[in-house]
Amino acid sequence: MPETQDVVSNLTVEEKASLCLGGDIWHTAAIERLGVRSLTLSDGPHGLRVKPEGPDAAGISGSLPATCFPTASALGSSWDVTLIDEVGSAIGVEARSQGVDVVLGPGINIKRSPLCGRNFEYFSEDPYLAGALGAALVRGIQSQGVGASVKHYAANNQETDRLRVSADIDERTLREIYLPAFEHIVTTARPWTVMCAYNRVNGVHVSQHRELLTDILCTEWGFDGLVMSDWGAVHDRVAALRAGLDLEMPPNLGISDAALVRAVDSGELKETDLDTSVRRVLQLVDRTAARQPATIDVDAHHALARRAAAASIVLLKNTDGVLPLTQSRVCVVGEFARTPRFQGSGSSQVNPTRVDNALDELRHAMPATEISFAAGFELTESARNAELADEAVTAASNADVVVAFLGLPSEEESEGFDRTTMDLPAAQTALLQRLLDGPAPVVVVLANGSTVLVTSWHDRVAAIVECWLGGQAAGAAIADVLTGAVNPSGRLTETIPLRLQDNPAFLSFPGEDGHVRYGEGIFVGYRGYDATGLDVAYPFGHGLSYTTFEYTDLAVSTTGSHDTGDLTITVTVTVRNTGVRIGAEVVQLYVADPESSVSRPLHELKRFAKISLEPGAETSVEFTLGSRDLAYWSTRHHQWLVEGGDFVIEAGASSRDIRLQETVRVEVASPRVALTAFSTLEEWLADPDGRAALVAAVGVDQGILGDEELRKVIGNFPLSALAAFPGIGITHDVLKNL
Amino acid sequence: MPETQDVVSNLTVEEKASLCLGGDIWHTAAIERLGVRSLTLSDGPHGLRVKPEGPDAAGISGSLPATCFPTASALGSSWDVTLIDEVGSAIGVEARSQGVDVVLGPGINIKRSPLCGRNFEYFSEDPYLAGALGAALVRGIQSQGVGASVKHYAANNQETDRLRVSADIDERTLREIYLPAFEHIVTTARPWTVMCAYNRVNGVHVSQHRELLTDILCTEWGFDGLVMSDWGAVHDRVAALRAGLDLEMPPNLGISDAALVRAVDSGELKETDLDTSVRRVLQLVDRTAARQPATIDVDAHHALARRAAAASIVLLKNTDGVLPLTQSRVCVVGEFARTPRFQGSGSSQVNPTRVDNALDELRHAMPATEISFAAGFELTESARNAELADEAVTAASNADVVVAFLGLPSEEESEGFDRTTMDLPAAQTALLQRLLDGPAPVVVVLANGSTVLVTSWHDRVAAIVECWLGGQAAGAAIADVLTGAVNPSGRLTETIPLRLQDNPAFLSFPGEDGHVRYGEGIFVGYRGYDATGLDVAYPFGHGLSYTTFEYTDLAVSTTGSHDTGDLTITVTVTVRNTGVRIGAEVVQLYVADPESSVSRPLHELKRFAKISLEPGAETSVEFTLGSRDLAYWSTRHHQWLVEGGDFVIEAGASSRDIRLQETVRVEVASPRVALTAFSTLEEWLADPDGRAALVAAVGVDQGILGDEELRKVIGNFPLSALAAFPGIGITHDVLKNL
Repeated sequence: MPETQDVVSNLTVEEKASLCLGGDIWHTAAIERLGVRSLTLSDGPHGLRVKPEGPDAAGISGSLPATCFPTASALGSSWDVTLIDEVGSAIGVEARSQGVDVVLGPGINIKRSPLCGRNFEYFSEDPYLAGALGAALVRGIQSQGVGASVKHYAANNQETDRLRVSADIDERTLREIYLPAFEHIVTTARPWTVMCAYNRVNGVHVSQHRELLTDILCTEWGFDGLVMSDWGAVHDRVAALRAGLDLEMPPNLGISDAALVRAVDSGELKETDLDTSVRRVLQLVDRTAARQPATIDVDAHHALARRAAAASIVLLKNTDGVLPLTQSRVCVVGEFARTPRFQGSGSSQVNPTRVDNALDELRHAMPATEISFAAGFELTESARNAELADEAVTAASNADVVVAFLGLPSEEESEGFDRTTMDLPAAQTALLQRLLDGPAPVVVVLANGSTVLVTSWHDRVAAIVECWLGGQAAGAAIADVLTGAVNPSGRLTETIPLRLQDNPAFLSFPGEDGHVRYGEGIFVGYRGYDATGLDVAYPFGHGLSYTTFEYTDLAVSTTGSHDTGDLTITVTVTVRNTGVRIGAEVVQLYVADPESSVSRPLHELKRFAKISLEPGAETSVEFTLGSRDLAYWSTRHHQWLVEGGDFVIEAGASSRDIRLQETVRVEVASPRVALTAFSTLEEWLADPDGRAALVAAVGVDQGILGDEELRKVIGNFPLSALAAFPGIGITHDVLKNL
Repeated sequence: MPETQDVVSNLTVEEKASLCLGGDIWHTAAIERLGVRSLTLSDGPHGLRVKPEGPDAAGISGSLPATCFPTASALGSSWDVTLIDEVGSAIGVEARSQGVDVVLGPGINIKRSPLCGRNFEYFSEDPYLAGALGAALVRGIQSQGVGASVKHYAANNQETDRLRVSADIDERTLREIYLPAFEHIVTTARPWTVMCAYNRVNGVHVSQHRELLTDILCTEWGFDGLVMSDWGAVHDRVAALRAGLDLEMPPNLGISDAALVRAVDSGELKETDLDTSVRRVLQLVDRTAARQPATIDVDAHHALARRAAAASIVLLKNTDGVLPLTQSRVCVVGEFARTPRFQGSGSSQVNPTRVDNALDELRHAMPATEISFAAGFELTESARNAELADEAVTAASNADVVVAFLGLPSEEESEGFDRTTMDLPAAQTALLQRLLDGPAPVVVVLANGSTVLVTSWHDRVAAIVECWLGGQAAGAAIADVLTGAVNPSGRLTETIPLRLQDNPAFLSFPGEDGHVRYGEGIFVGYRGYDATGLDVAYPFGHGLSYTTFEYTDLAVSTTGSHDTGDLTITVTVTVRNTGVRIGAEVVQLYVADPESSVSRPLHELKRFAKISLEPGAETSVEFTLGSRDLAYWSTRHHQWLVEGGDFVIEAGASSRDIRLQETVRVEVASPRVALTAFSTLEEWLADPDGRAALVAAVGVDQGILGDEELRKVIGNFPLSALAAFPGIGITHDVLKNL
């Protein structure tokens, strides 16, 4: 292929326009006369969905078989960046084998509300965690010479009216919650493409949002790849290109290309702007040129999918060592054990190479155990099936332990719409209550993409195993964890509240009349539950193991300084496996700024590490933090700001299980607030120089300086406003002199 | 005085400018050569604060003696518009006697957060109630030929950074929560002046907010009076005048007048715009010209203040008939019994003509009762005084009943700053816990301007008497209620939550960096607690009596129709006094719209009536409702909208004590939603004509119409976006034909 610059200079305006649109729904356009090939794009993000050519190119089903890895809500729960990198790499290999140049993932939007129908495709309610996990998937995919597409940039946090709704978000919230995951991935994993979101942000469609697509993404973060649209996100191709959207998908052929050509002809669009986008398309063609064909080892990928699914399982509760299963008579209840739900519906829907089910896998793994099964309920209808339930209760009555497979049927969550409740289907919870009335302890195994409420029953069950949507090997992975072949090590990436109404976004989700107010501001997820001090069912970061871990020797030291830009806080903590099984712990590092001029979360996750330890073994884990980890986004100064003072460094096993903490003092040369006539009297008095100047001008204890009663009432007036009041000593002359 | 038009045409530009500023801090400017007199303005709103001429004109204390009526948080709790009208009238008489032309009140801002330092000056968390009560005060004041000034227009709901903060409020919330009280008063009580707020709304200072000051206030609502600034609220006199601010107070002499003259000279400001404001000033001079001098009957006004204070007291709890007091040995504890707190600090601070204290009044009213007293704590310091507490515990141990006077010291709430907690001082609650450990039942009598938490002790006390800041006669009024001379009839105008964090505004109050996000939207006060389903300590509308009331025979009938603009819903309900004492009930009418296309409060107060009934007596109360009472503000259509269907009409004794309810069906000719290319596929299919057209164009079960799986995922795409997708049947040609 010739040099990009040569190609650009040889292209007609029509050809340039065509490159900024796809060639068809899954391919970019080719320019054969110049040797520019067409690229193949495939839905992701947890497996490929390559549609064969044909009339149903836009349809959901019927894609080529591919390994269905755990969905993001599952995979993210592993908190294991090495594993996620490995999964990304396997997806990259499958992309190579199917001739795919770009995989459309990962999805890293923040789980603002548990109701978002697409939460199963996203990692976390926490931006740092979503960024760290997403970066690992990008690294893995791109290690194979295949591009990733980080999506959906930005603030695509709901399905309701997703192509039109405006996410109305204040600046600080956007910067602290909804952008950092993208920022982290762009600056550390260098994705080749970013996909713009459907929605509007503060009234402007993201596909036309220059501040987001160009000023922040490219100028601030240094993104050097291509911005493509989500499928159908472009409404005004010319405005979108000017804002920084390089590639429109699917191509609005005959409309968008014509509009671009017309705009260049009329001078509305500079041809050099078009060239910029064309160059980015050609650069992507270049980058993917080295991609080599590959053959998939289907069994090896299935094994990886199984390992990943097992690592994603979160053991929420385990009373009296009911798990791993050692009982002689196990009664498995629930259609999900036989007919697993392992992925979500919509564009991410993979045609799996095979599918395990937990019932067969359990029977296979525990040949000596008597394992009975009763479906208990049907997946396809929400009405209770009394006969199936009765049968299950009877079967359960003869068992030493009941393992109930519950979850959300695919009708209840999907891309395209949001849930309206967090409840499991009533037929399932009714059955569960009956099982709980029986003699045997009940273990609940959950399959669901978004969090479900456990409030009405979690006190009474013996154990809860949250498996999310674990991909095609979820069945075997569940058996691995239930039997103890794998020690569970997943941790919650989102809070499980006691009530939907407790969720901080409850009052404003999903909005109406084309707008959704992000009313809770930065208090998303655990930041909100912490701020309102609400009890939760299971907190962010929570997850049990079949072993136990002890934290000791938290040490915090600093080098450099904030003011010179080289502040480094080194944190070490020792973790020891105090049980008798090998197991993995997720050490979580939170940072708190207890005294601040703005409201700040109680604490925020800033680092984590997943470490595997033999029984009795211990290891020291080291983290380093910098200024940014202490900062908040100042809407006054439009930049990250650190306020000097004490910060608390916490090491914990969850956001509400902090084991050790240390305070570290960080000196910051106070950014001198410029006092102006619009600064308040109290602001002047709080500043030593300001106070001296004011006292000199007004006189000691003269006017308002001597009237404490009045000062309490109008001390928060700007001096400029006080100048209109007689007899208080702040005259216009005084103001002029200050 | 000559005709306004003649005056205007004879004024120089300099004179016109001077009329749009005050003459001094409490007076408008005079134009002696044309016989235009200066008007006197006085702080209110629950009594006058006329400062004598002198160097301390801007100071708080030292005003002429005046009757201190109950503050708005107290007076509003009476839910008695007749009484409030009477109080307003008395304030008007005092204004006449002191030569005051305009009383600066009522304050009708919504109690968005219980932390607002100025809540004692406001009526309610509910806009309908605040409007109805404020209108009564305006009518009363203006019945004396004295102007009222409805303040602070609008969204002045906090003291923190009050002159600079921007209240960032979405359109629907502004229209449904923060404007209706002003709208109601302007359209029904015709106030002569409105005072603009200090703060900004959505980034623009209200003093310069043309949409608020002119488009909504004057054009929409027909306000025909004068808009004055809050004292010091003007930052750009020319911009303010253009926005609709007629009078700047206090006059920024030498600055603002010069700016106006310069702006007229330069053509920046049209002289006709200046004339409009001048005319409004002259009209106010006209309106107040008929004001007659008066002499105050100090005793009669004190008696009215006592009656008002008694009617304002809310009996929150009364176990086992502990009240009214009939015990032989009463121990009064708490410095507040001897040194009452009866008003708030700041511009509303009245120099009372006399002050009652509850201890003396109780002793006077119950000569046969042994009444001991122990201060228990000091008002001026928050540290516990162990000796005083010990003394109180000892005194209490010999009593049949303990009456503990608790409350907020004036340091803890005031104009000028917001509270940071809702707690009573720790010394008081510690003492209360000790009293509760004693043998005698404890009655708590509260004095506070804003709500305080009762969570930690209300289960254990025998009774709670919430007296708010009841004005100079509060002491006697408290004695009246405790002894049973007056049967309490106050009702809460704001919810008392269990925790501050439960308040819907908690996460965003009071904002930072110059902005406060109204994150809870319309879910302010009980609307929020209802939406989140939280238990509260005492709900909005709650209040007990020494008698009981029964509700029967709720009947709802309609005449007219929404579409013809004459819908009238007539509601009658019978209320019966089922006890043995005369007493007054506040019958509350709530309306709910259980099915709506937008989120709506569980129910909203729409009418109320306070009725006094002899024992055994009953009466039928009638209310009428219209379309507006069923409507929500549509941000899509920028107007009030009623959605046809069922509405629930509820009659209750509080927002959470609904006694009777009826459903009424209201037909509305559906406003035909225009289907466009930007309407979604599901919107087209939901419309019968749209569906037919689409089916005709695409073909029955063709393309996406036959692909249920895909429709679930992209059914919420606008047709224009779908047109870019191949093979689904929505082509650009189809679109063009539709």
